[in-house]
Amino acid sequence: MSERMIATIDVVLLTIQQQQLSVALTKREHEPYAGLDALPGGYIQADADRDSLDAALRILHRKTGVTPPYLEQLRTFDGCARDPRGWSISIAYFALVDAELLLQANHPGLSICPVDALRRLPFDHNDIIDAAVERIRNKSQYSSLPCHLAGERFTLPNLQKIYEACLGEKLNKVSFRRKMDELGVLEEIAGQTEAGGAHRPAQVYRLKAEFANALKLLQRGL
Amino acid sequence: MSERMIATIDVVLLTIQQQQLSVALTKREHEPYAGLDALPGGYIQADADRDSLDAALRILHRKTGVTPPYLEQLRTFDGCARDPRGWSISIAYFALVDAELLLQANHPGLSICPVDALRRLPFDHNDIIDAAVERIRNKSQYSSLPCHLAGERFTLPNLQKIYEACLGEKLNKVSFRRKMDELGVLEEIAGQTEAGGAHRPAQVYRLKAEFANALKLLQRGL
Repeated sequence: MSERMIATIDVVLLTIQQQQLSVALTKREHEPYAGLDALPGGYIQADADRDSLDAALRILHRKTGVTPPYLEQLRTFDGCARDPRGWSISIAYFALVDAELLLQANHPGLSICPVDALRRLPFDHNDIIDAAVERIRNKSQYSSLPCHLAGERFTLPNLQKIYEACLGEKLNKVSFRRKMDELGVLEEIAGQTEAGGAHRPAQVYRLKAEFANALKLLQRGL
Repeated sequence: MSERMIATIDVVLLTIQQQQLSVALTKREHEPYAGLDALPGGYIQADADRDSLDAALRILHRKTGVTPPYLEQLRTFDGCARDPRGWSISIAYFALVDAELLLQANHPGLSICPVDALRRLPFDHNDIIDAAVERIRNKSQYSSLPCHLAGERFTLPNLQKIYEACLGEKLNKVSFRRKMDELGVLEEIAGQTEAGGAHRPAQVYRLKAEFANALKLLQRGL
């Protein structure tokens, strides 16, 4: 009756690199598909992990060297066909991180690839990434989610470029700023500005402490 | 390395009864919690189920007698603390069904309870139901999802009551009808009307065939 299943975690760690929404891949250490790039993942360990969120944080840290400011369950991918080892369950998570943090961690075997330039990956990892990209596209329309890709300090022009990379479209500057006001998640860092090329220096912002690991929603989309 | 886990399915089967959003519960046949009401659920069977969606349909049919017109993965509930048998994974689904279909099936051990009047259920089943109610509340604001609760034929006043039960609030009749037009999922059944008490007879509608198992989204919410 009580069959037991292979149970793994896969994490879609998204970041922005060269103004493109990108995903972190790691070289697989073991068969199947040893040596190929794939999503950071691993087995749930009943004695080490309280739940799958715990497991996702442990595995992500071991495989990429980072603990992301935002991590959310995506959905579960499962069945008899997705893994040559047999019927398997992968509880997929997606995480957001500033590319700077990934560069600092400089973890061996880690690469960053634009989501629009992915080759065919092992298992159903392309499907898992597609689901994560769809989720972030939807949530970017009405939430503070992309702010977690911006690092600790950023200007509004930087943040707008990040929203545009997530949404895959250009935004109007005035309505973008009005929507950010409405969200109410940002605060100015007093006295800090950043040179903006031909423009006057831009105010530097950060996420308010209470939103550093949380989402806030707009009443209406961007 | 490759530990195996207890892997189950739980289904939140939602319906409308007496204009209240309600959930189907079944009497548990086995320990733990034998004899208590809980969500319809069971083990995934590697030889019977191609994937968890297959398993959800099989288990739901066995425990409730119905195959719902709408079924979607909710999320996975897991960890060391949720099941006295040990570390476990439950891939939760939610389904929508017309109450009439449940009454016809008349399955032994099945009961229907308003989601606002639930007692403490076994495992984390209250949390799973809360997540399903949150999902349907969110999706009711901008999609055709509640139409799957309406049965094969319905009038617009009936459908508005169903949306109101899902959302937990009253809607404006004129804007509700405009939004339904905008969704474009309904078609009139020629020549069919239904007596409407003091009002003139109401036109009878059904879902267009192409939306019978699918969602359609509004650009802006209700």
